[in-house]
Parts: sequence; structure tokens; C-alpha cells
Amino acid sequence: MTDAPLATQAPPGGDGLLDSGQPAAGLAADALAAHLAAEAAGFLRELPSVDLHTLRRVGAALHTFEQLLDPGWSQDLREELARLGLLLGQERAYGRRLARLLAGLDSLTCTDTTGPERTAGPVPQQREAEGLLARHPGAPKARALLERQLTLGRSRAHTTALQELGSARFHALADRMTLLVSDLPLRPAADRAPANALLPCAVAEASVLVGAVEALPLERGAVPYTGDMLHDPGDDQPWHQLRGLVLRTQYALEVCGPLLGARAARPAAALSDLARVLARHRDAAEAAEAAALAALTPRITPATAYVLGVVHADQRLEVEAARHVFSSTWPDLDRSGWLTDAWLTNR
Amino acid sequence: MTDAPLATQAPPGGDGLLDSGQPAAGLAADALAAHLAAEAAGFLRELPSVDLHTLRRVGAALHTFEQLLDPGWSQDLREELARLGLLLGQERAYGRRLARLLAGLDSLTCTDTTGPERTAGPVPQQREAEGLLARHPGAPKARALLERQLTLGRSRAHTTALQELGSARFHALADRMTLLVSDLPLRPAADRAPANALLPCAVAEASVLVGAVEALPLERGAVPYTGDMLHDPGDDQPWHQLRGLVLRTQYALEVCGPLLGARAARPAAALSDLARVLARHRDAAEAAEAAALAALTPRITPATAYVLGVVHADQRLEVEAARHVFSSTWPDLDRSGWLTDAWLTNR
Repeated sequence: MTDAPLATQAPPGGDGLLDSGQPAAGLAADALAAHLAAEAAGFLRELPSVDLHTLRRVGAALHTFEQLLDPGWSQDLREELARLGLLLGQERAYGRRLARLLAGLDSLTCTDTTGPERTAGPVPQQREAEGLLARHPGAPKARALLERQLTLGRSRAHTTALQELGSARFHALADRMTLLVSDLPLRPAADRAPANALLPCAVAEASVLVGAVEALPLERGAVPYTGDMLHDPGDDQPWHQLRGLVLRTQYALEVCGPLLGARAARPAAALSDLARVLARHRDAAEAAEAAALAALTPRITPATAYVLGVVHADQRLEVEAARHVFSSTWPDLDRSGWLTDAWLTNR
Repeated sequence: MTDAPLATQAPPGGDGLLDSGQPAAGLAADALAAHLAAEAAGFLRELPSVDLHTLRRVGAALHTFEQLLDPGWSQDLREELARLGLLLGQERAYGRRLARLLAGLDSLTCTDTTGPERTAGPVPQQREAEGLLARHPGAPKARALLERQLTLGRSRAHTTALQELGSARFHALADRMTLLVSDLPLRPAADRAPANALLPCAVAEASVLVGAVEALPLERGAVPYTGDMLHDPGDDQPWHQLRGLVLRTQYALEVCGPLLGARAARPAAALSDLARVLARHRDAAEAAEAAALAALTPRITPATAYVLGVVHADQRLEVEAARHVFSSTWPDLDRSGWLTDAWLTNR
């Protein structure tokens, strides 16, 4: 994984442009080319394994800075990267779902004396901890059922991924990434744009994010225990899309890091935290769905189905908790005035 | 129901003692006798129906101010009142459980356009609301099952209550309440104690409450979404007992209202709010248990059992929400320094 912000990486084609702290000189195209070249080189170095973060970072940069890039070429490459990311991501997604559901179920059925491992809140007092489903007759069968179904899904996704990595389509993509290391296809006038031209692109990306957040019921999400995730969950999809927007804005800030200097650090860190919260949201929502699907398996016992109902609700509670964290922390970032015109010129 | 604080009631045997705003004169026994006489008169007036609040208020006063009362007599009467309250409370408890479970299930399965009714949080935006179990095939059967089982339980409790109200034991209790209107059995020296002697009794009651609260994991409860109600619920019992202690302290403050004047209003209101939160805790815990019991019914379908699992988890979430509210609001009351020696003497 290459999660370090770009500002801390040595610029491969450095010409003084990326010296942070200095007013940015140089050209936007050079800075963008250096960023994409570094990511593409990383992609090629890792082959035959593929880092999904790299795919996402390249795709995000192609999207955010598309005004500088050859439109047909960048659109094509973005679609290929998105398709590959989705396809290769399935195996890992099944793994995450499986791990999350088994951990949840084990915690629901635990009879430890040390207490179950939970992420939120202070450490509970040392005492006999016991999940609500401890010794429930349906728990072992529900566990076996979830394990069987999700392991099967993961195996299938693994096979599909292997086929993809051996395909002509994948090799064509690798060739395009090779080209990206040395030669970035630009729009006609883009090669003379100053480095500062990157900033409006990042601002536009941030505006899309802000607009998407404003369409969500954050005020309600900030109230704990509304029970909405069971009683009125609405659509999960806008929240899932939000994660993509948060990451794109985070990556845009990293590309602009040299232009923004230290001021980029706080919003970048905040966005990274929010992306993690939204990943938890996605994982919990998918796990809840997997539990609901498992409950539709023919010929399961009522006890198994009951346990799956509790597991389903437990994961939806995690969805609600993630929305609560996002809804409570977003206003802080928003109030900081990040990536507004005033924030940009104040340097 | 007689929920108005005593301070606003005309003292039946008034001798100027209960004029709030004035330094308290008169005797503790007279004030207590007046309070108990008013409650007992209310009890007799309502017959043959019984107000459970009255039973609880009389029992609480007998407990809090037992140092003034004939110990054998007050202990006996308290036990009779507690037994009757428990017995007559069953019918209403089944009714509350039934109403709560059906409302929860209806909300989980709703497909309204106006959104489900929820108590917490701002009003959701007007849009298509849909519970997580909307159109679930198990929902109608689960609803019918819960309705059947809890209606049966309520009917049985009703029969038991009717038998009790016709029993010699109940008539003996009514006779004792009649005596209470005119003649309060005191300890030998208690009849000369000044009205201020009521205060240490109320302080002692409050200390018991504070001690019980301090034994609970409030710091953790104040963190939302720990998931403890499913994963590590601990014992509900201390929280149920807490409600009794909160009410006893609230009633003690009301008896002492004339001595304390306006300063009693804020803690009394806070205690009343906390008692309501703990009643919600109790109702949700009992409803969750009823859903779990219903899931043990032989020959139910897996779909029905699944729905009951979700309903169970939903009610446990309500338990967690109630503990969260209690844990978040108690510190405010505690910080106010109410019923400490300093608070008592500052008048």
C-alpha cells in the first residue's frame, strides 16, 4: 500500500516544483505527470499482484485533473481501472464480510471472562462478559452457514480474479500503465498551465464532496440511537458513493500538497479518517446483507434463522454507528473552511 | 394518578407547617402523617380500582422515613404493598410489552410515505420511509405470534388481579390503609422530632441512590454505539432496581418539599426524567425477552424466527439507548451537588 501523502515522496522528475514551503513554480502537467508516473511505476513493480489503492489513486487523479488530460484517453483508462478494481475487490470484500460476521457472532456468543473485544468506548471492567446469544442453540449452525457461504463466494471471486489477471485485457491495461510512467497524454493547451492550475481542480472535487454530504441527513445522523438503521434506513448507496468522493478529494489534496504546504495536512488527515468510517459503513452494510441472504437458505432451523436476524440487526447497528461518527465529525472539517477560496489564498 | 408534588397540595391537617418559603416549623411526624393520609385517602377513593403509583408512594415513604415509624408495622405494610404492586402490575406490564413490540415491528415493516414515528432526533425529511423488514414474509406471522402470546399473558394476569382484589388479604390491606388516614403508628420518641428531621432521611435515601449509580459503568454507557446490549449486556437487574431507588428519592424530595422550597424543584424534575428513562429501559428489556421467548415456540418458520431475532435486537438497542441517556444525564444532576449537606444548609 502506498498511503503516504505525495508531499513526503521524492518527486521522480523533480525540478524544484515540489519543494513544499516555497511558492509553487513549474507546470501543472509536470507535477501531475510525476504523480501518475510514481503510481504507475508502483503498479508495475508489484505485478503480478495488484494494489487496489494504486488503481484507485490513478483513477482519482485522472478524474480530478481531467481538464489537463486528453479526454478520450483518460476516460477509457479510468473505466478500465474502475472495472478492474471492482472485479479484483470482490475477493477481499468477501473476506472482510466473513471476518466481520464471524467476529460479530463470536462476540454475540462469547462467554469470556476478559470481555469481548469491541472498538468503541473505554475498556469494560474485568468481569464475566457474556454475549446475548451465548449458548444459543442456533449459533454454531449460523456460524457454519455464514462461513460456508462466504468462503464459497470468496473462492469464486478468487477464480475470477485469477482469470482476469491472465487475460489479454489485463495485459493491455498493464501496457497503458507502462506508457503512463513516461508519457502523459495532455490536452492541447494544458502543457503550459502553471502548477497553480491544479488547485481549482482539487477545489472542484471538494465541492462535489460537499454537495453530496449536504444532501444527506447529517443533523439526524448526529443524534445517537435514532434506530433509523432498522426502522428507516433509507438508501445506503449515497453513503457508499460518499466514500469514493472522500478518497478522491483526499488524493487531490495529496497531489496539491506541494502547493498547499502544511495547511493540507489537517484536512487530508480528516478525510482519511472519514474514509475509514465510510469503509466501516460499507463493510457493515454488506455484512448485514450477507446475513439476510443466509437466512433465506432453504431448510435452516428456526434457531439458526433467529441468530441470523440478531446478527443482521447487529451489523445494521454498526451502519448506524458509522453514520453517527461521520455526521458528528464532518461539521468540524466543514467549519475549518478548507479548500474554500479564502483557505486557498491564505498562504 | 397523583403525580403533582406534595408542595402544591393543600395539607389536610395543615398547621402552617407546609407553607413553603417559610422556615419549617412543626413536627416531622405531622408532616409525614399528612402525606400518608393524603395518599391513603386517594387509595380508598379510587377503590375498587388501584393506582399503582399510590401503592409505590406509600411504600416509598414508609421506607424512607422508617426511623420515625413503628418498625414492625411499617415493614409489614411495605411488604404487602410491594406484593400487591407486583401482582397488579403484571397485567399492565404485558400490555406495555405488547404495545412496544407491535409498534417496533410495525415500524420495522412500515412502507409509509410519512416516515415511521420515532421518539429520538429531529423529524426526518418527508420521503418514502421503509423499515428493514418491509415486505418480509415472516413479519405477519411474527406479529400474530407476539400478539397471541402476550394477549394470553395479559388475560391471565387480569384474572389473577381480579382474584386478588376480591381476596380477604386485599380487604385487610384496605383496612390498614383506612387506619393510615387517621392514625400513623410512630416509634416512641418520634412524635416530638422537629420537621427538619425528615431531611436526613431523604439524604440517606439519596445516598443509597448515588451509591447504586456509582456501581454502574456510566463512563462506558455515555459512549454511544458500544454495542454492549448485544455483545456484553451484563446484568439488567441493577438498572431495574435503580428505577425504584430514583422514584424513592424523588418521592422523598416531594415529602420534604415544604422544607426545601424552590430548590427541590430542579432535582425532583431531573429524577422524574431519569425514572422515565429507566422505565423505558425496563420495558425494552422485558420486550426483548418476550421476543426471545416467542422464538422458542415449537414449529415456527425460519422466516418468523428471523423477524423475532431482529425485533429482539431492536429492543436491546432501545435498552442501550436508555442506558446511554441515563449515563449522559446523570453527571449533570450529580454535579449540581443536590441533597449534599452543603445543598441542604444553603437556604
